[in-house]
Amino acid sequence: MAALPASRQFDRLCVVLAAARNPLNIGAAARAMSNFGFSRLRVVNPYQIAFREARSAVGAEKLLADATEYGSVAEAVADCGLVVGTSALQHRELQHPVRRLEDGARTIREQLAVGRVALLFGSEKRGLRNEDLSHCNWLVRIPTREEHSSMNLGQAVAVCLFEMARMGSAEPLPATAMASAGDAERFTNMLLEALRASGYVKPGADASTEEKVRRLVRRLNLQADDAEVWLGMMRKILHKLRD
Amino acid sequence: MAALPASRQFDRLCVVLAAARNPLNIGAAARAMSNFGFSRLRVVNPYQIAFREARSAVGAEKLLADATEYGSVAEAVADCGLVVGTSALQHRELQHPVRRLEDGARTIREQLAVGRVALLFGSEKRGLRNEDLSHCNWLVRIPTREEHSSMNLGQAVAVCLFEMARMGSAEPLPATAMASAGDAERFTNMLLEALRASGYVKPGADASTEEKVRRLVRRLNLQADDAEVWLGMMRKILHKLRD
Repeated sequence: MAALPASRQFDRLCVVLAAARNPLNIGAAARAMSNFGFSRLRVVNPYQIAFREARSAVGAEKLLADATEYGSVAEAVADCGLVVGTSALQHRELQHPVRRLEDGARTIREQLAVGRVALLFGSEKRGLRNEDLSHCNWLVRIPTREEHSSMNLGQAVAVCLFEMARMGSAEPLPATAMASAGDAERFTNMLLEALRASGYVKPGADASTEEKVRRLVRRLNLQADDAEVWLGMMRKILHKLRD
Repeated sequence: MAALPASRQFDRLCVVLAAARNPLNIGAAARAMSNFGFSRLRVVNPYQIAFREARSAVGAEKLLADATEYGSVAEAVADCGLVVGTSALQHRELQHPVRRLEDGARTIREQLAVGRVALLFGSEKRGLRNEDLSHCNWLVRIPTREEHSSMNLGQAVAVCLFEMARMGSAEPLPATAMASAGDAERFTNMLLEALRASGYVKPGADASTEEKVRRLVRRLNLQADDAEVWLGMMRKILHKLRD
């Protein structure tokens, strides 16, 4: 397959639910897919035909309606280059290499640049069966606690897709601008005046008091948008104190 | 609070569900907490009393039974130093700094080394209300698609806790402990009184003014060691204003 821009590569990930029993979970998987920008849902032998109406697919109704049904895992993954199983277990499938999700997700992302990838989830009760696993190139494991490793299906799908999407979008949110040092100093001086007027700072207090107050104010990390408000409040309070 | 080994620090994270409507989601949140090693669940005004029996809490029944109920967000976060809200929105709350989950989770982990942290989730329908948000120091946003940003509650909890647990291996740098939300609220109330006494806030001002001031104070990210000093200064100023 040709290389695609990152934004289109997510269309190459097929989320395959094998023998999911609960339509709520299928709907939840669809919703998480939609949240993180994936669109191809494939369902193998769902226990309930009514899964397409799952009310839990809030906002992902179309994705669910477009899901394709297959009679076997083999058919569902046939057109995919890389097939990755998900598992809560740590030992059972030592026949398969198991990667931590973080590492596995990276490799999957790399593969999506060049071809289709299937990400397989088993049934709520038993996970992937041995036969399903035999179709996988390797497995990923979400790093849950050993004492309670089995995740809810919809939550497992959400976590895996989050991890995959996370690495795609390094667009940082705009940082919050901080108040200028000048404004911080103006605030410090007004505060000092209020402290003197109220008797908190004694007349003739030494320079170290002033420094302490300045440090206090700097530790607030005042934001630019807030500085005006704080200055305005302090101005009013000072005015009243001087009465 | 004393430094704790990383394995015990997760006990200091309080997952707070504000006005969750669906017991299935509360159960799912409990299950994800157990999967990733978190134990403290706090519930504010759950819509259904029967939430403790949520069948979706597979493997996390005890955690759910141990959940504490609160009548308000203020009470639920009062003993926490850092209060972080979760939001799907990108614009509404520009009053608050919004961090990407990955960055926010790192800061939360650093804070857990020195004190309690509250991670707040709103109701399925509306997310966190403005009044809830006003108790937060800042917000985290899971990097979902703009076109479909609203996640299922249980899935959002799972993704946030996964991200926090994921970083467990790396020993964080020691952080500065933050003032408790209780102290921040005390400071807010004293400041409000000073603003009323000085005429900055008109008598009969509506609740939104109170919220605005609360947000301003939360954005200061007051440090624990400084809280006493700020409270002392404000007490003195207030005393003088009342003269």
